[in-house]
Amino acid sequence: MELCTTIQAIRQARAALGTVGFVPTMGFLHEGHLSLVRQARAENDAVIVSIFVNPIQFGSAEDLSTYPRALERDVALLQQEGVACVFAPDVAELYPEGFVTQMSLGGVAAALEGTSRPGHFAGVAMVLTKLFNIIQPQRAYFGQKDAQQCAVVRRLVEDVNSPVEIITAPTWREADGLAGSSRNSRLTEEDRKRAPALYRALCHARDCVRAGEHRRTVLEAAMRSVLEAEGLTDIDYAMIVNPETFHTEGEIIPPHALALLAVRVGAVRLIDNMPLL
Amino acid sequence: MELCTTIQAIRQARAALGTVGFVPTMGFLHEGHLSLVRQARAENDAVIVSIFVNPIQFGSAEDLSTYPRALERDVALLQQEGVACVFAPDVAELYPEGFVTQMSLGGVAAALEGTSRPGHFAGVAMVLTKLFNIIQPQRAYFGQKDAQQCAVVRRLVEDVNSPVEIITAPTWREADGLAGSSRNSRLTEEDRKRAPALYRALCHARDCVRAGEHRRTVLEAAMRSVLEAEGLTDIDYAMIVNPETFHTEGEIIPPHALALLAVRVGAVRLIDNMPLL
Repeated sequence: MELCTTIQAIRQARAALGTVGFVPTMGFLHEGHLSLVRQARAENDAVIVSIFVNPIQFGSAEDLSTYPRALERDVALLQQEGVACVFAPDVAELYPEGFVTQMSLGGVAAALEGTSRPGHFAGVAMVLTKLFNIIQPQRAYFGQKDAQQCAVVRRLVEDVNSPVEIITAPTWREADGLAGSSRNSRLTEEDRKRAPALYRALCHARDCVRAGEHRRTVLEAAMRSVLEAEGLTDIDYAMIVNPETFHTEGEIIPPHALALLAVRVGAVRLIDNMPLL
Repeated sequence: MELCTTIQAIRQARAALGTVGFVPTMGFLHEGHLSLVRQARAENDAVIVSIFVNPIQFGSAEDLSTYPRALERDVALLQQEGVACVFAPDVAELYPEGFVTQMSLGGVAAALEGTSRPGHFAGVAMVLTKLFNIIQPQRAYFGQKDAQQCAVVRRLVEDVNSPVEIITAPTWREADGLAGSSRNSRLTEEDRKRAPALYRALCHARDCVRAGEHRRTVLEAAMRSVLEAEGLTDIDYAMIVNPETFHTEGEIIPPHALALLAVRVGAVRLIDNMPLL
């Protein structure tokens, strides 16, 4: 496996590969990432993984500085998974002095995370535009845990006619239902025990829908009550949207309904989601 | 030669070619375009030319609706030049319903045309991002006549790490010095006679610099006086900038000086430029 830190090096390494499946990450890898890597390996000649904590998608300097990192461990994990190249540039390699271009997205990028984290998706769109141009993969892999990001990336790729095929893989979960996230490592022991309430709240909404409840306000309140019973009251959003548009108008109509949560658990903001089928 | 109107068709046609030189145009081709095509042919296995009047780079609906078009004649010209494919999509093919992504650029895109035509370069950046993704050329060719556009495109390509090499070719001129432009076709007979005053004003500035004049205000006034002597008083700008930054501060320092004009000649807005060496 090759570890590249410059654009020139990864371009040269990529040129020797056939079809490439690309897994963009911010590092501190967990089983969710590795499940994407395994799928990418099965569907392409070779896999490239990027590890880059993209500063322009963070709204808060604090969140950026505390984002967990473990490059050596990540590289060892990826070597075991048969990855061909890891691309781990520093910030100046991707955003040198003089960098001015920005992207902006409306539509699916406007609500939820777009409201809670202004500029977040613009930063995601820019770094992916750059990484896709550098790596030129056939396919790129994203986890369903970041459901809105998946929708935004699909919109972006369609709008700019990128030749990259976007693959969304199911959310990887711990045994107690907690969705895999690098941020989980920052939970205290006690908060780790409370965190699966997100999953339980989503399952509860799904069960209510299966029992015939289609009123958005009732379902959203049902999710909040599960969270609040666990003492999780700092809720950014607990919403049900149309997964194509991320709009929230009117009564929900399964299967066109996706429940999404963003909740602060102690010092850590977690997100999760589930289709209501 | 193949004429493609859909993204699917041009992608399929492109896949059968080796290295590709790409000449993006808005059609109504003149000798300036054809000189780019010839250079592209000499430097690549095959040439693809796009013909697309990009609505999102026009500020005024009037300028867009009166932009000259002659697809049949253009296609015949390109066939004579040995072009492999022409890509001439309609507006809905590149901007279907639901399109939301925007690009914005600062730096070299902020001044001059960026001020006179808000949104112009954002529109140029978007259509080129799309066309580069669709056509995946090795090289793309632009005329020095659109000097600021060349600087913006270089900045864009660097910022998004596009693998496309940007080639700038010298401005093609009529015998009397008028720079080749599709908009020249909209000049009345009388205005056509006055239009070479832009070239003469630029030459005058260059001659003043060669005679030792380095004061920006004097040189800019000298250009204006040549234009005004021809009755051309509707001057958007007559400026000298640093060609790397497009900034205008301080005394000019050849060879880091580029004189630029945007002048309305009758109903037609013309631009031209010349390095002051």
